Amino acid sequence: MSKPHNFSAGPGILPEEVLTQAAAAVLNYNNSGLSILEVSHRGKDFVADMDKATQLVKDLLNIPAGYSVIYLQGGASLQFTMVPYNLMKVGGKAAYANTGVWASKAQKEAKLFGEMIEIASSKDKNFSYIPKGYEIPTDLDYFHFTSNNTIYGTQYRNFPESKVPVVCDMSSDIFSRWFDVTKFDLIYAGAQKNMGPAGTTMVIVKDEFLGKSGRQIPSMLDYKIHIEGESMYNTPAVYPVYVSMLTLQWLKDHGGVKWIEEINRQKQELFYTELDNNPAFIGTASKEDRSWMNACFLLKDESLDAEFSKLLKEANISGLKGHRSVGGYRASMYNALPLESVKVLVDVMKEFGRKVG
Amino acid sequence: MSKPHNFSAGPGILPEEVLTQAAAAVLNYNNSGLSILEVSHRGKDFVADMDKATQLVKDLLNIPAGYSVIYLQGGASLQFTMVPYNLMKVGGKAAYANTGVWASKAQKEAKLFGEMIEIASSKDKNFSYIPKGYEIPTDLDYFHFTSNNTIYGTQYRNFPESKVPVVCDMSSDIFSRWFDVTKFDLIYAGAQKNMGPAGTTMVIVKDEFLGKSGRQIPSMLDYKIHIEGESMYNTPAVYPVYVSMLTLQWLKDHGGVKWIEEINRQKQELFYTELDNNPAFIGTASKEDRSWMNACFLLKDESLDAEFSKLLKEANISGLKGHRSVGGYRASMYNALPLESVKVLVDVMKEFGRKVG
Repeated sequence: MSKPHNFSAGPGILPEEVLTQAAAAVLNYNNSGLSILEVSHRGKDFVADMDKATQLVKDLLNIPAGYSVIYLQGGASLQFTMVPYNLMKVGGKAAYANTGVWASKAQKEAKLFGEMIEIASSKDKNFSYIPKGYEIPTDLDYFHFTSNNTIYGTQYRNFPESKVPVVCDMSSDIFSRWFDVTKFDLIYAGAQKNMGPAGTTMVIVKDEFLGKSGRQIPSMLDYKIHIEGESMYNTPAVYPVYVSMLTLQWLKDHGGVKWIEEINRQKQELFYTELDNNPAFIGTASKEDRSWMNACFLLKDESLDAEFSKLLKEANISGLKGHRSVGGYRASMYNALPLESVKVLVDVMKEFGRKVG
Repeated sequence: MSKPHNFSAGPGILPEEVLTQAAAAVLNYNNSGLSILEVSHRGKDFVADMDKATQLVKDLLNIPAGYSVIYLQGGASLQFTMVPYNLMKVGGKAAYANTGVWASKAQKEAKLFGEMIEIASSKDKNFSYIPKGYEIPTDLDYFHFTSNNTIYGTQYRNFPESKVPVVCDMSSDIFSRWFDVTKFDLIYAGAQKNMGPAGTTMVIVKDEFLGKSGRQIPSMLDYKIHIEGESMYNTPAVYPVYVSMLTLQWLKDHGGVKWIEEINRQKQELFYTELDNNPAFIGTASKEDRSWMNACFLLKDESLDAEFSKLLKEANISGLKGHRSVGGYRASMYNALPLESVKVLVDVMKEFGRKVG
């Protein structure tokens, strides 16, 4: 059986080479005769792999001194709580930009800790665009935004300018394009899109940003404690971190973030060109804010859904269903998705266009 | 290469059959052609596996209606915070028994939420015994204890009687022996000893125990939200849950908790009999409180450490080093450790005894 073209929105596709190594380690980790699932996280092999997973993030994003990289658990969802717990001062204030479900959830949790002000929102058009032209106040503990919105297929193609510390949820586009880490004070990302399987969350934080909230923070929610523990304050999610390390190593070996950005550029260009030229389909996101990671679209004639689905199935295309909250289709084109898979999808779209046109 | 005898204290040994299935799913999950690491957690296959992982806990422990079972992230360490956040009333009080490092950490986090009273401790003798004969007050939100103490090799062989709700950290001995769930109001366990790999935590909670604290709880720390979301409020740790499901299925297929308890009885009896009869070794835990999961011991003559280590290595025995805080040796005999491995260890102990005796 040939492998399906995997357009899943997340957990998303991982490189074949990584999966081969990941499966082997379940049977025999580093030639120990034991599975990676049944060895101590404090053994020298896994300590070395954790260090490698951390160093790869620093190398790939050219992170300067003064920043720490840690692996946590609980996904971006736990970060929605950890960010205000650590960074919003008692009696403090933070601003959030609302670009969809995940951004809204982050806002909801922040309200438990202080004044959360929503300074921008695209809710008026079902989050189909990225709000622009707003000013970020200067009396804030931080400003929070979500760089890519998987559900709606929107992405900040340019980052907002801010005089206050910037916190960003990059769960669904980190490592997909080059950017300047020094413009940010805290970045977090659930691994399960571009960097690994579900079960671990990577956080990049500027050290001097921490320890100022005046709150008593539970240990497991305190970034400083995890930094001091080198991501091993408690037992980490060993296997998710290991597979993330393999994926980042794959990225580095092939040429790094600038290399993958160029491939991602080609993939989205190929896809969106077809979307714009094929009258059988309608893109749902504002053109200038289109995501390179997740392309959302509808059939012009929704009654032809079964027909299109049949063609997708014949072409061995998987995971194209839109999020349950918006419907339609969504092509997720994460780092590990080959250009070839996008070509296959575009061919199906052409064929569908001919048939129904 | 024959597989080492794995006495690791945790993450601990998993059954061979489970590892074979777990590795296969990394390459091809349920014949989908895709890896379990790169598919949606909301796909029907994984939803079914999550349900199975939950149902197996209920079946194996004969859990009655009125209790919920959920899979979370963050290990027992995050439970140290979630327990008081959800269960200690504002202005409330809870009692803790201190039987070692993990129990102490739980106490530390509870103090952030209200009055934490330590009603028993074995700190006076480096936690080498389980405190007994104390009374549990009746004006408490709950009483918390740790059923098995991996670092010191002690275990509650009988559970304390309590008139207030009982919360128990069973991370290192759940599923190793039969017990009555209805005596408990909340049980939590990091998976990485008897039920799976690191990265997921299983919680059993009596539903009527929840929603009474009067606190505003962050969503990710709220048991009720995870129960309503059927462990998928956010993306779960897919692979750790999957491997836990396989391990629980293995346990059920072979005869369940009473079957494994009998094997665990034989393993500890074999080991402790040798320990007591061999003058080259000294057990560190009080005899009546000895753990069936972790047996801690010292060499009578510590200068012979290299000699003993050499014999262990020759016998292909792995993971016997004691915790860094206490030194010496620790034989962890979790569910998946075959009786045969204990026989091999006992043979090494006999040989060592003969050589140095």
